[in-house]
Amino acid sequence: MDQPIPERLRPEEGLTRVEAVMAAIEARISGRALSPGAKLPSIRGLAESMGVSKSTVVEAYDRLLAQGSIVSRPGSGFYVASRAQPLCLASIGPRLDREVDPLWIARQSLEAGAAMLKPGCGWLPPDWMPDADLRRALRQVGRERGSGLTDYDAPQGLPPLRQHLALRLSERGIPAHPDQIVLTDSTTQALDLIGRFLLDPGDTVLVDDPCYFNFHALLRAHRVKVVGVPFGAGGPDLAALEQTLAAHRPRFYLTNSGLHNPTGASLTPAAVHRVLKLAEAHDTLIVEDDVYADFETEPGPRLAGFDGLERVIHIGGFSKTLSAAARIGVIALRPDWVERLVDLKLAVSLSSGRLNAALIHRFLADGHYRHHLDAIRARLAEARGRAVARLTEAGLSVPLVPKAGMFVWAKLPEGLDAAAISRRALARGVVLAPGNVFSLSQGAADHLRFNVAQCADPRVFSELERAMAGGGPADRNGSSRSAPISTRGIGDEV
Amino acid sequence: MDQPIPERLRPEEGLTRVEAVMAAIEARISGRALSPGAKLPSIRGLAESMGVSKSTVVEAYDRLLAQGSIVSRPGSGFYVASRAQPLCLASIGPRLDREVDPLWIARQSLEAGAAMLKPGCGWLPPDWMPDADLRRALRQVGRERGSGLTDYDAPQGLPPLRQHLALRLSERGIPAHPDQIVLTDSTTQALDLIGRFLLDPGDTVLVDDPCYFNFHALLRAHRVKVVGVPFGAGGPDLAALEQTLAAHRPRFYLTNSGLHNPTGASLTPAAVHRVLKLAEAHDTLIVEDDVYADFETEPGPRLAGFDGLERVIHIGGFSKTLSAAARIGVIALRPDWVERLVDLKLAVSLSSGRLNAALIHRFLADGHYRHHLDAIRARLAEARGRAVARLTEAGLSVPLVPKAGMFVWAKLPEGLDAAAISRRALARGVVLAPGNVFSLSQGAADHLRFNVAQCADPRVFSELERAMAGGGPADRNGSSRSAPISTRGIGDEV
Repeated sequence: MDQPIPERLRPEEGLTRVEAVMAAIEARISGRALSPGAKLPSIRGLAESMGVSKSTVVEAYDRLLAQGSIVSRPGSGFYVASRAQPLCLASIGPRLDREVDPLWIARQSLEAGAAMLKPGCGWLPPDWMPDADLRRALRQVGRERGSGLTDYDAPQGLPPLRQHLALRLSERGIPAHPDQIVLTDSTTQALDLIGRFLLDPGDTVLVDDPCYFNFHALLRAHRVKVVGVPFGAGGPDLAALEQTLAAHRPRFYLTNSGLHNPTGASLTPAAVHRVLKLAEAHDTLIVEDDVYADFETEPGPRLAGFDGLERVIHIGGFSKTLSAAARIGVIALRPDWVERLVDLKLAVSLSSGRLNAALIHRFLADGHYRHHLDAIRARLAEARGRAVARLTEAGLSVPLVPKAGMFVWAKLPEGLDAAAISRRALARGVVLAPGNVFSLSQGAADHLRFNVAQCADPRVFSELERAMAGGGPADRNGSSRSAPISTRGIGDEV
Repeated sequence: MDQPIPERLRPEEGLTRVEAVMAAIEARISGRALSPGAKLPSIRGLAESMGVSKSTVVEAYDRLLAQGSIVSRPGSGFYVASRAQPLCLASIGPRLDREVDPLWIARQSLEAGAAMLKPGCGWLPPDWMPDADLRRALRQVGRERGSGLTDYDAPQGLPPLRQHLALRLSERGIPAHPDQIVLTDSTTQALDLIGRFLLDPGDTVLVDDPCYFNFHALLRAHRVKVVGVPFGAGGPDLAALEQTLAAHRPRFYLTNSGLHNPTGASLTPAAVHRVLKLAEAHDTLIVEDDVYADFETEPGPRLAGFDGLERVIHIGGFSKTLSAAARIGVIALRPDWVERLVDLKLAVSLSSGRLNAALIHRFLADGHYRHHLDAIRARLAEARGRAVARLTEAGLSVPLVPKAGMFVWAKLPEGLDAAAISRRALARGVVLAPGNVFSLSQGAADHLRFNVAQCADPRVFSELERAMAGGGPADRNGSSRSAPISTRGIGDEV
C-alpha cells in the first residue's frame, strides 16, 4: 500500500525540482513518517500529487537509490532502505559537487603526495617543518627509561606539558593555570570535544563568513544550526554581530581573533573588547581557535586574554607549526568546567596520546621550537611578499596583506568564478581553495585562499592563469553558473 | 513572577522524593519550559503544588544549585542558571556517588601512579609492557629520514599499517581488505566515531549486562537509550536477546564476542551463529569490540568473521597489549560505508596520529609483538591461576575461569556488597571494580572484576579480606544498602 504522499511541491530557493522531490522524501524518512521497509509512492502517483513530471520523480528516485536511502525491488516498486544506513555527512546541508567538494580535495591532497601542487592546502610544505629536530627529540624520548611510553596519560594530559603550555599562554596574555588546561589528540578534536560539551542538537552556532571550512563540516556532525556573521579586514561586522546574537541566540561564537582563516585578519584591541561586550550582553560563549598563534611575530590581543577565560574557551595546537603526525590539542577554559570536560573526555576517548605529549613537551622545552618559529616566520614573510606580487600580476587583488601566517585571501577579477577555476586547476594537478568553501552565505565565489608557503613553484601561477583564462576541461554542466560548493575540508587544522 | 509549577509529584520507580523534584525541574529546564533566567517557584509554593514537604524542595534546590542548574539571588529567590552551562555527563542517567564513581576512580588510578594497588583497573602493570622494545622502535623511527614525522596521515590511516592489519584480521578469520580498514586515534575513539556514524539522539543501543562500564558513559554522550541483555558464561541470553531486539529495535548491539569484559567469556561458534541470525531477523547492526583479541592463545570465533563484515563493524586496538601512550584504533567495516565514515573522521578529527601508526607498524612488522604476546599470555595464565586460587580462599567464587585475558569475574559470599567493599578498599589505597559499575540493571552488586595481572601484591587480598570483613571506614550514610553506582570508567580501553 502506498504511503501518505508528500504535499504539493513548493520548491525552496536554490533547489532544483529533482532536489526538492528528494528533500521531501528524505524529510519523511528522517522524520520517520516513512519507516524503513515502507513502500514509496508510485512514480506516476508522486508526480501527480507533487505537480511535477514523471521524469523528475524518476531522477529523484534514481539519486535516492544511488545514495542508498531507498531500494528498488524489481516488479514491485521502491522502498525505504533498511535502517542500516549510516550518517552521510554530505547529505546534511547543501548537496555537493564532489569534484570541488573540499573534503574530496582533502583526500586528494592528503593522498597525492608531492606530485600535486597545493596552494589551496592548509599546511606548510614538508621541507619547512623541523623534521630532523623532531626525529632527534624522538630518539631522545626513546632513550629515556621510565618515560611512560606504555602508560595511559593523566586524565587532563601530561602535567609537565600543561605547565609549559600555561607559561606560553601567559606570555600571550592568557591567564591559564595548568589545571585549566585539558589536552586532546588534536586541535580538531579539541573543538569537537568542546562542541559536544556545549551543544545540544538543534542549538545554533555562530561562525565567521568566511571561516575555516571544516568548522562547517564539524558543526554538521553536531547537528546544529549554523549562522554566519560577515567577517572582513577589521574582524566581524559588529552591527551584524549584534543583530545575529539577538536574533539567533547562538550557544557560542566560533572564531579566530588572530590570523583569521582564510582572511589573515587580526582583531584590534578595541574590536576584541567590543566582541566581548556583545557576547556578554547576549549571554553567548566564545570558542577561540588560536592554532595559528605561533606564526605571529608579536602576540596580538586575544579574546581569551581580555576575557580571562570567563566566557571564552581557548583552543590551540601545534599541527601547523611543529608536526601534523604527532598532534595534540590544547583547551584552556574556566576552572569550574574542567572536571566536567574531563569526564566527557574520558567517556569518549579515555585518554589523549602520551607519546605525542611527551615528544612535544621535549621539543618545546629545549628551545628548538623557538628557533624553528623564528625561521618560518621570516620565510613566510618573504613568501608572502612574493605571492602577493605574483597574484597581483595575475590580476587578482589582495586588499588585506596579513601581518603573519600562511594565508592570503585574494579576489579574482570581475566575472571570474573561483569554483570553475578550481575545478579546471584540479584537473591539471593543482589544488586551489575556492572562496565559497569558506562561506556559509556562498558570497565568496570571487575569492581564493592561497597558502603562500605552497606557492614557490612557478607552475602554481601559470596554472592559475591558465584556469582563469578558461583553459583546462570545461565545466561539467557546460554552464558557468557558480556550482554550490560544500563547506568541507581541504585538510586544514582548526 | 512564578513560572508555571510542575504537576503534582508522581515519584517514579527508584527515585527519592528529592530526586523526583529535581527531575521535574530539570525536565522543564531541558524542555525549555523554564528558560535561562526564569524565576523558579517559591519553596512553599512548589512544596504545596507537588505535595511534598518544604524540606524536600529545599534539598532539591540545594542540589540543583550545587550542580549549577539554578542560581540563587539573595532576597529574591531561585532562578534557572544562564544557558552557559555545559554538559554534565554525571547528570545524565542515575545520580552518582562520586566516591565509588568509577570515573573518579579512573582519575585516581591514572593519577596515583605506582603507590596504589589497582586490581580493579583495566590495564597491565608497566613492567608487563614492552617498554624497552618500544623505545628501540621509537629510536628506529627517529632515524628514518622521510618517515613523514611532520605530515598529516592519509585520510584512512597509514597504508602499510592497514595492509598489515588486514593480514592479521584474516588470520583470525575476518576478511577485511586494507581499504575496509579505517584508523582512529584510539579504540575508544573508534567506537565513538562509529556511534556518531550510526546513531541519532534518541536511538536505542543494546549492550551486555554486565559490560565494559565505559560503554555506558560513552553512550550517554551520544544521548541514546541503552538497553541490556543478560550476559553469562555462554554469551548473551538468546531468548532475552530476541525479545529485546523485537521490543526495542536497537540500532546496534555492542558486544565483545571474545574475552568479554568483565566476564572473560567467549562465544562458541554456535552462539556466534545464533546472535547473527537474530541480528539479521531484526535488522540490527552489531559493533564488535575486539580489543582483547591478542590475549587469546588461539583465535576464537568472531561475529565479524562469520558475518564477513556485512552487518558487523569490528573494532580493535593495541592499548592493552602494546602501549596506552601510542594508541591507535582500528575499524573494519563494509566497503560501501568506508567513504562516509572517512568523511566523518575528517570532519571531527581531520587525521589520525601518523607517528603512533608508524611506530605500531614497525613494532608489529618486525616480530617483536609476537614474542611479547607469547610472553604475556603465559604470564597471564600463571597469574590467573594464582588469583583464582587466592580469591577462592578469600571466600569468593569464580564460576567461569576464562581461557585467556586479564579479567576474572568473581562473586562475593552471600550478603556482601561490592560497592561498600570497594569504598572501604579505596580508602586504604586499593582500587577495586565493583560489579554494578558494569551492570545496567544494577544486578551485579555481589560481583567484583579482578585484573589478575594487578594481583601480584599480597596486600590486594589482605585488603580485600579486610574490606569484606567490614574493616576500614564505615559507609558514608551509615547504611549497608547498595549505593547506586555509576556506569563509568575505571580506565579500561574498549
